[in-house]
Amino acid sequence: MIRIMEGAFGTSPKTIVGFGDDISVVKLCPDRLAVLKTDMLVGSTDVPPGMTMRQAARKAVVANVSDLAAKGVRPFAGLVALGLPSNLTKRDVQGIASGLRGAAKEYQFPIVGGDTNESKDLSISIALFAIASRRQLVLRSGARVGDVVAVTGEFGAASAGLKALLKERLRPDSLAPALSRAVYSPRAELKLGLALAASASLTASIDSSDGLAWSLHELSRASKIGIEITHVPVSKTARDFAARYHYNANDLALFGGEEYHLVVTVKPKKFTLARRAARGRLRPIGVVTSRSQGVRLMELGGYSEIPMKGWEHFKR
Amino acid sequence: MIRIMEGAFGTSPKTIVGFGDDISVVKLCPDRLAVLKTDMLVGSTDVPPGMTMRQAARKAVVANVSDLAAKGVRPFAGLVALGLPSNLTKRDVQGIASGLRGAAKEYQFPIVGGDTNESKDLSISIALFAIASRRQLVLRSGARVGDVVAVTGEFGAASAGLKALLKERLRPDSLAPALSRAVYSPRAELKLGLALAASASLTASIDSSDGLAWSLHELSRASKIGIEITHVPVSKTARDFAARYHYNANDLALFGGEEYHLVVTVKPKKFTLARRAARGRLRPIGVVTSRSQGVRLMELGGYSEIPMKGWEHFKR
Repeated sequence: MIRIMEGAFGTSPKTIVGFGDDISVVKLCPDRLAVLKTDMLVGSTDVPPGMTMRQAARKAVVANVSDLAAKGVRPFAGLVALGLPSNLTKRDVQGIASGLRGAAKEYQFPIVGGDTNESKDLSISIALFAIASRRQLVLRSGARVGDVVAVTGEFGAASAGLKALLKERLRPDSLAPALSRAVYSPRAELKLGLALAASASLTASIDSSDGLAWSLHELSRASKIGIEITHVPVSKTARDFAARYHYNANDLALFGGEEYHLVVTVKPKKFTLARRAARGRLRPIGVVTSRSQGVRLMELGGYSEIPMKGWEHFKR
Repeated sequence: MIRIMEGAFGTSPKTIVGFGDDISVVKLCPDRLAVLKTDMLVGSTDVPPGMTMRQAARKAVVANVSDLAAKGVRPFAGLVALGLPSNLTKRDVQGIASGLRGAAKEYQFPIVGGDTNESKDLSISIALFAIASRRQLVLRSGARVGDVVAVTGEFGAASAGLKALLKERLRPDSLAPALSRAVYSPRAELKLGLALAASASLTASIDSSDGLAWSLHELSRASKIGIEITHVPVSKTARDFAARYHYNANDLALFGGEEYHLVVTVKPKKFTLARRAARGRLRPIGVVTSRSQGVRLMELGGYSEIPMKGWEHFKR
């Protein structure tokens, strides 16, 4: 479906980045670009059991802000279009409003307009608008051979939390605090993304919302390079969950999703600068190679291919 | 629900127009404004029987473009977020893509990005972005006592067509061509809106998507003036349908909706200029009065209040 939609549009002379990156970019005038982003949260596929309306609305904003964060762009203004099931209560709608307001405040941009509709499924569609210069934007396509591959966090807690809820049928209020936070209150790394972009040390960047493996493959595809990972950055939360419920911790980290870390490639000579810009929260996990595409995990005595498997939205 | 959402946001220093007009406006720099618009089409409430996916997608664009047209602003770029039910066929999705592509071409702007999701209800959420100068924008709030109230078309065909389908249970393919066109292929008056704004003769403007009466009331409320209508501009299509199926033709025209004409107030000395700009397609229907609010229909020997009744989305 996504391919059909993408194929339908082609490009216009003013389109700098169309489908195929985290955001879209159109030329306003020679040195200024408009950055546009839309992402829709759908009740039946994006809202796990136990998530409040407030948290769902906030998550809708986080998903959009995270994509701007990965590009090093600060949101300037936002719009929200809502599809609300008729069985929502006034309190539910107030929860949505409160979640949107809180998230807009958290990421410091105004929500300036919107549209409210009745719908059979909850949908919260956010559109963000920003202004950027070409120099500032970090796309998916700039990684070069020899660059350091790095991430701004550890992975797997969100997918562990979702497994706990959906496969292990744990009650939402019985989740460990770290799992609960990962599922219900994810954060977008806007400050880190802005600081990293300002340090001019990155060559490519993407957020990890579709999973670490998927993000690495996207960088590989867009930059036409290979990626070799020396280790998988698994969070302690995910490791603990994996040990207790018999999951593969690496798989939770690689093929999870709904986690909003940044996955970047860094000029090797500027790695120290980048790490300082990120206040230490940047860890190397691998290197860019001259293979034209693909992601490998280097292991003792060999390597394994990491498949392009991503986060599949769950269904209830 | 709309009130809860509006109340939730307040304003920011850079917000020039927030909730409460057809579009939102934020200041980019002293002389340039960003104009933002989002409107969501929902399958269960906005897609009448017999409408194809292609027509539904086009209508989603038309509804958004029409609001920009009323403000005298040309769309610069668009985004689309889709919620697609799992029972849609590949052909349905191609129809949506084709409808979006055709509409973007018709109104000459690129759709530069989007998001595709699975959802229980069809939702097509469009976000438009444009650039404008303050001078060019025609808001709802500028009408002055003595201005001419005018419209760019005749009303009632769309609501007659919907009554034919939903109340009279006529088969979609048995509708008269004019009814069918009004329901399935509405147009946004972008050229007219741009020409009228360029003529600098308008004091206020709105589109009629929620019905003529609703639009007049909105102008009255936002401009804090009264409106006296000398006659209701009913289309021949609506009159013929009303006569045959025993409806009140004035009601069809006043309390319809899903029709995208412009409803404007014009400086009296510039009416001829405005009509020329609209190539004759501007007809006076009344006058702005000093009553602080309300809309009246002047009749022989008196007047009647026109209630603020608008188009209610139908449910299937």
